[in-house]
Amino acid sequence: MNRVEADEGTRVGRVMQAIRSRIAGRELAAGAKLPSIRRFSETMAVSKSTVVEAYDRLAAEGVIQARRGSGFYVAGHAPPFSVADLGPRLERAVDPFWVSRQSLDAGDSVLKPGCGWLPADWLPQEALRRALRTASRAPAETLGDYGTPLGLAPLRQVLARRMGLHSIDASPAQIMLTESGTQALDIVCRFLIEPGDSVLVDDPCYFNFHALLRAHRVRIVGVPYTRSGPDPVELERVLAEQRPRLYITNSALHNPTGATLSPVVAHRVLKLADQFGLTIVEDDIFADFEPEPAPRLAAFDGLDRVVQIGSFSKSLSASVRCGYIAARQDWIEGLIDLKIAASFGTGRLAADMVLTILRDGSYRKHMDGLRGRLARAMGETSARLKAMGVRPWIEPRGGMFLWCELPEGLDSAIIARQLLAEDIVLAPGNVYSLSQSAGRFLRFNVAQSGDPRLFSALGRAMAAGAPQGSTASD
Amino acid sequence: MNRVEADEGTRVGRVMQAIRSRIAGRELAAGAKLPSIRRFSETMAVSKSTVVEAYDRLAAEGVIQARRGSGFYVAGHAPPFSVADLGPRLERAVDPFWVSRQSLDAGDSVLKPGCGWLPADWLPQEALRRALRTASRAPAETLGDYGTPLGLAPLRQVLARRMGLHSIDASPAQIMLTESGTQALDIVCRFLIEPGDSVLVDDPCYFNFHALLRAHRVRIVGVPYTRSGPDPVELERVLAEQRPRLYITNSALHNPTGATLSPVVAHRVLKLADQFGLTIVEDDIFADFEPEPAPRLAAFDGLDRVVQIGSFSKSLSASVRCGYIAARQDWIEGLIDLKIAASFGTGRLAADMVLTILRDGSYRKHMDGLRGRLARAMGETSARLKAMGVRPWIEPRGGMFLWCELPEGLDSAIIARQLLAEDIVLAPGNVYSLSQSAGRFLRFNVAQSGDPRLFSALGRAMAAGAPQGSTASD
Repeated sequence: MNRVEADEGTRVGRVMQAIRSRIAGRELAAGAKLPSIRRFSETMAVSKSTVVEAYDRLAAEGVIQARRGSGFYVAGHAPPFSVADLGPRLERAVDPFWVSRQSLDAGDSVLKPGCGWLPADWLPQEALRRALRTASRAPAETLGDYGTPLGLAPLRQVLARRMGLHSIDASPAQIMLTESGTQALDIVCRFLIEPGDSVLVDDPCYFNFHALLRAHRVRIVGVPYTRSGPDPVELERVLAEQRPRLYITNSALHNPTGATLSPVVAHRVLKLADQFGLTIVEDDIFADFEPEPAPRLAAFDGLDRVVQIGSFSKSLSASVRCGYIAARQDWIEGLIDLKIAASFGTGRLAADMVLTILRDGSYRKHMDGLRGRLARAMGETSARLKAMGVRPWIEPRGGMFLWCELPEGLDSAIIARQLLAEDIVLAPGNVYSLSQSAGRFLRFNVAQSGDPRLFSALGRAMAAGAPQGSTASD
Repeated sequence: MNRVEADEGTRVGRVMQAIRSRIAGRELAAGAKLPSIRRFSETMAVSKSTVVEAYDRLAAEGVIQARRGSGFYVAGHAPPFSVADLGPRLERAVDPFWVSRQSLDAGDSVLKPGCGWLPADWLPQEALRRALRTASRAPAETLGDYGTPLGLAPLRQVLARRMGLHSIDASPAQIMLTESGTQALDIVCRFLIEPGDSVLVDDPCYFNFHALLRAHRVRIVGVPYTRSGPDPVELERVLAEQRPRLYITNSALHNPTGATLSPVVAHRVLKLADQFGLTIVEDDIFADFEPEPAPRLAAFDGLDRVVQIGSFSKSLSASVRCGYIAARQDWIEGLIDLKIAASFGTGRLAADMVLTILRDGSYRKHMDGLRGRLARAMGETSARLKAMGVRPWIEPRGGMFLWCELPEGLDSAIIARQLLAEDIVLAPGNVYSLSQSAGRFLRFNVAQSGDPRLFSALGRAMAAGAPQGSTASD
């Protein structure tokens, strides 16, 4: 096959893929008419014959049907909704569920440097056991009843005070408890966006933002993330062009990069949000991992255009489910209704346990120790990776994530697949990247990267994958 | 105002309301053009001048805007999504959130005969306390880690065996744990339906089905529920006319009526489901309240067209969050992806506690005692209500709900508002009724109806509301 044919094949494939994702995303429902050959050739900037070829192949596959003299139509009934089918069909190694599914399914013998949480023995076990014993003596209502719509009042008071330490002015009545940070984001999305809206995320960003937004059937748009936050020039361009309603981001200890929003960029972001009528969700679940507080959009903005969400899944326990939303007072009633509709109440027991641990001082002590332990693990992991030619993009101020670039010529998705065969779950960069531009990156969880097996297996995979004439440590 | 003017006013109001709900339901987005006067007068079967008047009034309110020579358009930006705004705008007393919000918010001094759960001291406190103490000695992973994507395997094995007792053939691999029965239903809806689809519910049905379906932006259609299940003739008609994709129902101890599906109707329902390509969600959260097992759609059907959901929120604890979905094997992967997208994992701790209580025999003992206690409360509540002229629609086989009709001339929404002023939360019939045809009904929770204050307050409200010349006990 010569170069021209290969390019032509790619173009036909691209058109086929574009139609397939519109069908999967329900933009084209079963029975709907496809765009005309002429119009779609303009949309995709390809020749009409390329579109004809693509439509013919899709018809041969039974995906669409030609009707004489009338054009092409989507065939039969749509299959049940699948979030994995929306957006470009990616290889399973780089789709947004790859890391979560592999990590959640992994047995105890599997190494999980790609996962997003701490090993269970880094969590405050004694405090959790004590909180369970305390709960075993709680009133009958705590053991059996639904919580109130907003959730346990004394915990909301503590959360409001903690937000005050970050200069965020929130009353307990502006805080609603949820089952988790993810559920908090889901409720906010249900409240603020509708199918077909555009939603902005950082590129790269936490992969589950992509997964959740696909479930909401919105159009996801990305803004490049720099070492001090979203690129302001690109942000302005994408706001003007795509008019997203919502922007989901982390301000401190950004996932996956570990970067921190600078005050200058924070002000620029809020100014643009005002200008373009944008609402921002600041996902702050890593707040307590910071060595010292960095700027928060919610602090500058006063919870006007900014909604903050948080949880204790990363710092305390993923098993004791407790997250929260802090938002404008006039949005709280609507958020409560949606929480009741989608999950009825929230568990009193989890909230009660979190409150016990926050109050008795064991949480503060645990986090003090944890930050030190993570800083040491960060130094060690960083040194080991650098020695192998794997370069950290920045030295994060804290947290558990190290965003690293492989030497040229290596593909992190290939390496991730190779290490999976050796029972090691890595997090390849493109699961975080809407533009698929992070193919040489890996996110390492330094708390899960202590085992020397990781580095020997990584070294072998890099050597095997390196272009001829170079070595992995070039 | 004479009769003709009043009718005209009603017609204009009906047209205004129809436009308002289309805007609230996003059928008409901000900036969208309204139907032409002529077309909408045909749709609504009213005169053109009625539509002109309705459009003018909506324009005066700022809801829509006239553009010279071009028609009417939806004004400005849509407000944040509100499930309470979708569907006909009901008085708060009869909207689907009324009972849940009042019940969840109620302090300890409030009587809650309208709520849907047991008093905390009817739940197995000692078993819950023991399970918490057992959990306090659990391995670190149980205390801190995310569960596996499907959830705790030994609990799924126990659930599969329990379903076997109802002749439902489900393997543990077909069962996925969730945070609650409501979350289970939410995930199934996300998987099987899309905005704009029609979904069928019983009329009356559990009010939160309405709330959840509004959040999914679907069209809700109802089928009248009889003493032996959905009316088969009406079911066939509505399936043929509305082509719903999904039907959500309870087969045993139907909420709110307490009725049970008969085998004849069950077979008819499944035959129609086959004929019209309908999927059925059988919400079975009251299974363990049955004195003896009644037919299950999932048993006849073998989990082909039927998805079953359950939870322990009603029988064990609403605070220890644990529900589940049993579905076709080939749907499980898609359901897992949606669970991860929307809530990441499920708590191991709650699943662990439920397993402990199911295994050590205390659950069985608790339910045996509970069924007896409920049967006694049912008899007492039923006798007291009958003496007041409030007639149970049926004598339920078990469970906690008694669906009762007030004497002619009384409105349960008015009575519910009156009793709320005396700190008594009732459940007026129309919160359960899509067609708003249950205005004389109330659902009583017999476990929450022991206090004589309820009956004296109810008697006073009935006497005050009764038509002149009659008494409440006529």
